[in-house]
Amino acid sequence: MKALLIYSGGLDSTTLLNEYREDIKIALTFDYGSKHNAKEIACAEENCRILGIRHIVVPLDFIGRYFRSGLLKGGEEIPDGRYDDENMKVTVVPFRNGIMLAVAAGFAESYDLDTVLIANHSGDHAIYPDCRPEFIEAFDAAAHAGTYNGVRIVSPYCNISKREIALRGRKMGIDYSRTWSCYKGGDVHCGRCGTCTERKEALEGFDDTVYEHCDD
Amino acid sequence: MKALLIYSGGLDSTTLLNEYREDIKIALTFDYGSKHNAKEIACAEENCRILGIRHIVVPLDFIGRYFRSGLLKGGEEIPDGRYDDENMKVTVVPFRNGIMLAVAAGFAESYDLDTVLIANHSGDHAIYPDCRPEFIEAFDAAAHAGTYNGVRIVSPYCNISKREIALRGRKMGIDYSRTWSCYKGGDVHCGRCGTCTERKEALEGFDDTVYEHCDD
Repeated sequence: MKALLIYSGGLDSTTLLNEYREDIKIALTFDYGSKHNAKEIACAEENCRILGIRHIVVPLDFIGRYFRSGLLKGGEEIPDGRYDDENMKVTVVPFRNGIMLAVAAGFAESYDLDTVLIANHSGDHAIYPDCRPEFIEAFDAAAHAGTYNGVRIVSPYCNISKREIALRGRKMGIDYSRTWSCYKGGDVHCGRCGTCTERKEALEGFDDTVYEHCDD
Repeated sequence: MKALLIYSGGLDSTTLLNEYREDIKIALTFDYGSKHNAKEIACAEENCRILGIRHIVVPLDFIGRYFRSGLLKGGEEIPDGRYDDENMKVTVVPFRNGIMLAVAAGFAESYDLDTVLIANHSGDHAIYPDCRPEFIEAFDAAAHAGTYNGVRIVSPYCNISKREIALRGRKMGIDYSRTWSCYKGGDVHCGRCGTCTERKEALEGFDDTVYEHCDD
């Protein structure tokens, strides 16, 4: 496998980066104008540097300019709460995975790579339609049909939970302090938004994250 | 139907713009660093202005910077010849339609539009894998599964030829002098590259285009 990873710098994709480190030739991070992009990108850069993997940051300015989402600068406030709450829908960026996968497939064809890896997981399914297995399957068919080298989309964590991903990473000795989750864009993880709540549950028992709020 | 059109400013998508003018709420043009983008964009802007349709130009700088294609500034020279010749493969931009469709689907969801229109046609199939019916079908399934409002991809010209498109447009009274085809990026159509050859054949009998070379 010669792979390209869609790499946010978060917990899930950092685990995937380490698990497939021998296969990954390029890691792509997208700067789409989210409140927490700067924090994510710094983590992504550092982890790629340590592993000696080529890292490319792709700006997608049109998302911040034209799309509506609380996740974006200038958008609504990020709500506190669990990931599966109705109010977390404000964090949806329309078809974000579709856009990232399409750009990644174009890069893969350009650099003669056969696989695009993406770290969506089962906890994403409730809120994000472009994280569900039926979406990934359909997009895989489109990328395969639409590229000369028949690029495949591979999503190894699609049916496991974030907790299972973190336990897998722990076995690999991943330092999760070099990953970023919080959607609010502060200096430290807020500890209360949906992704912080998810992160705490995933890392329970081995969490070195500094949270602004430690409610429990 | 509340539709968004992927609109290059060329012959095919200008016909689609006119045919679906009542349904199209937004026309999206992509500036991806091709040699002929400036000419295309000027035509697209003018036609949208005349019809009173909102026009948005989306820059995709990463394509010009990272992708390999003769179509792009700094890429190989555009060959003369027919569209179905092996040497026209140099004009392929990897997964271009996949990327444009994904961005368009995100825009459609953001602006509550249910349909993305694209003007690929049967003459594109030989060289461009992301113009073939099986690609469009798979991408439609992906966009439908991956968006909250179930965006559909509609490709009305997928199985007709450029000549048939032009004849349809002629009946509608379209002024094709306000469209751009040539890949070479000169001041007038070169008359010899693959798209110019195709354009001449499509418009035969009612072609007002000024060509630099009129070989036949």
